[in-house]
Amino acid sequence: MAEAAGVSRQTVSNVLNAPAVVRPDTRGRVEKAIADLGYRPHASARRLRTRKSSTIGVRLDPVQNGISGAVLDRFLHAVTEQADRRGYRILLYTAASPADEIAQFGRLLDGADVDGFVLTSTSFDDPRTEWLIAAGAEFVTFGRPWGLDDVDDPRHRWVDVDGRHGIASATRSLLDDGARRIAFVGWPAESGAGNDRRRGWREAMAAGSGLSPKALDALDLHLEDSVSVAAAAVHGLLEGGGLDAVVCASDTLALGASTVVGPGVRVVGYDDTPVAAALGFSSVQQPLEEVASAALQLLLDGESGGEAGGAAGGAADRHRLLRPRTVWR
Amino acid sequence: MAEAAGVSRQTVSNVLNAPAVVRPDTRGRVEKAIADLGYRPHASARRLRTRKSSTIGVRLDPVQNGISGAVLDRFLHAVTEQADRRGYRILLYTAASPADEIAQFGRLLDGADVDGFVLTSTSFDDPRTEWLIAAGAEFVTFGRPWGLDDVDDPRHRWVDVDGRHGIASATRSLLDDGARRIAFVGWPAESGAGNDRRRGWREAMAAGSGLSPKALDALDLHLEDSVSVAAAAVHGLLEGGGLDAVVCASDTLALGASTVVGPGVRVVGYDDTPVAAALGFSSVQQPLEEVASAALQLLLDGESGGEAGGAAGGAADRHRLLRPRTVWR
Repeated sequence: MAEAAGVSRQTVSNVLNAPAVVRPDTRGRVEKAIADLGYRPHASARRLRTRKSSTIGVRLDPVQNGISGAVLDRFLHAVTEQADRRGYRILLYTAASPADEIAQFGRLLDGADVDGFVLTSTSFDDPRTEWLIAAGAEFVTFGRPWGLDDVDDPRHRWVDVDGRHGIASATRSLLDDGARRIAFVGWPAESGAGNDRRRGWREAMAAGSGLSPKALDALDLHLEDSVSVAAAAVHGLLEGGGLDAVVCASDTLALGASTVVGPGVRVVGYDDTPVAAALGFSSVQQPLEEVASAALQLLLDGESGGEAGGAAGGAADRHRLLRPRTVWR
Repeated sequence: MAEAAGVSRQTVSNVLNAPAVVRPDTRGRVEKAIADLGYRPHASARRLRTRKSSTIGVRLDPVQNGISGAVLDRFLHAVTEQADRRGYRILLYTAASPADEIAQFGRLLDGADVDGFVLTSTSFDDPRTEWLIAAGAEFVTFGRPWGLDDVDDPRHRWVDVDGRHGIASATRSLLDDGARRIAFVGWPAESGAGNDRRRGWREAMAAGSGLSPKALDALDLHLEDSVSVAAAAVHGLLEGGGLDAVVCASDTLALGASTVVGPGVRVVGYDDTPVAAALGFSSVQQPLEEVASAALQLLLDGESGGEAGGAAGGAADRHRLLRPRTVWR
């Protein structure tokens, strides 16, 4: 190879591993020789040399039974495609529990199988992110830390979607169209994401519905994520005092609501699943392509790569809260 | 390491790479030394030594808009979990076309990134499998080759689900319950899997419905996989001569049918998606865990690993056609 290009072995190595340090004309000659000889560095040899795997670890989440479960699969698609364009591959692993996932982190890092991780499904006091921070590992999460004290932690890079803004915006649109009695069908209070979406509805309703706090409480449902449970609860509200519209924390709940409301009552779900499109109800759509792009940028480009303004090392370089949009039908 | 265990370096290497050749007591001593020293072989060094990556390449299929698209994601989950138990990892790649996927095969094999492939979504005269056979690469497909001359090709290992049997069995159950006018809502004739499912309905109806071939033709719909198209077409049949039941090639079509039939008309879909469970229609369920298990067995255990009987090298060692079951609701 070096002979064919008339350069030293070190120069060939530089072209492969640090092309910026090689003069363009020399680089062109070496690249032509590489192409002519059909040379490809063996992946494992390259990894040993560079100590980089060009591989990102992603957990494949357990299959969800709800119809919104596919959202994380769609995120995985976006991450895989965008990583591919950057020359990175995705290595999948599974884990039955946070402790099991931490054991996987250890194995993957010890074996130099991955350069870093993209995590999903963050929770209050997530032991996984604590472990990764302590281990000095590279990671980014889709989902903000839900604790009060860690959302601004500079060691935890995250991307999330502003569900509160999305639900508030959808609720305001319904109010603008004349709806007043707008119910919120959400999850129990343990869910960080669920509470955030509920807050969006509550704020928009408090500002624009003219209803009393007590009337709003009566329109605020805390349910498990089930079609039949949502259908029964919304049916109860229709019998009680009637409804103008229903805003839901998920398309599963919206599907339940859509089976009992009349044609004049609009239903808005969350996640814009194929079911929402098929049955024709509106839904708040997460910008998953943008989430994937921001996650890879935070993980791979580090603090210097942020095009978001502000001083070097600002929060915008480490955290991104993206806005969803409602698909009206 | 060798010193700590009081054995030769070759023995340590054997314990790591070919434990069966080491005496159990010696193996125990080396394994204890490995544990005491916290030793882990570097993945890349291991790969160079063994020429094996312990990694399987799987294409992440483009996101499907239909509600059955999640089936391939569920298959990916099953493959990832079962591969993990065997010490194999899944490397994801994406491809925009068969030609693009073939280029990915080349890159992954040249770099020794994967030991083999699990392919999905096979088609008539699939250029991908032809390329892999010519390259001498290890692969297995979920989906049989749909050509007339290649289904028994010993160089093409495959696992598939017998959709014809699944649809025939569901249709016979409906006939046993007294239904006679049972429509089939399927795809256009270009689909190998779709034609196979249609054949199951046709055979069961010819044997048990008492309807003429002409009457069966009128109950046999060829539609695109769309909720609204299916709803309109089934509505037409209801207006025409009435229906006792509807059997569909997908849950998307079944969802459309379920929105227009009355409570006395049973609807059976295919793939048992969360939507079928949520809306309460029956559906034929593919045994995806079994498919994943059989695929890994054919790929990793080779011809010697088949527990299916028959002479060595028999078709059962290379092809598995599994039976689905109907989930009745």
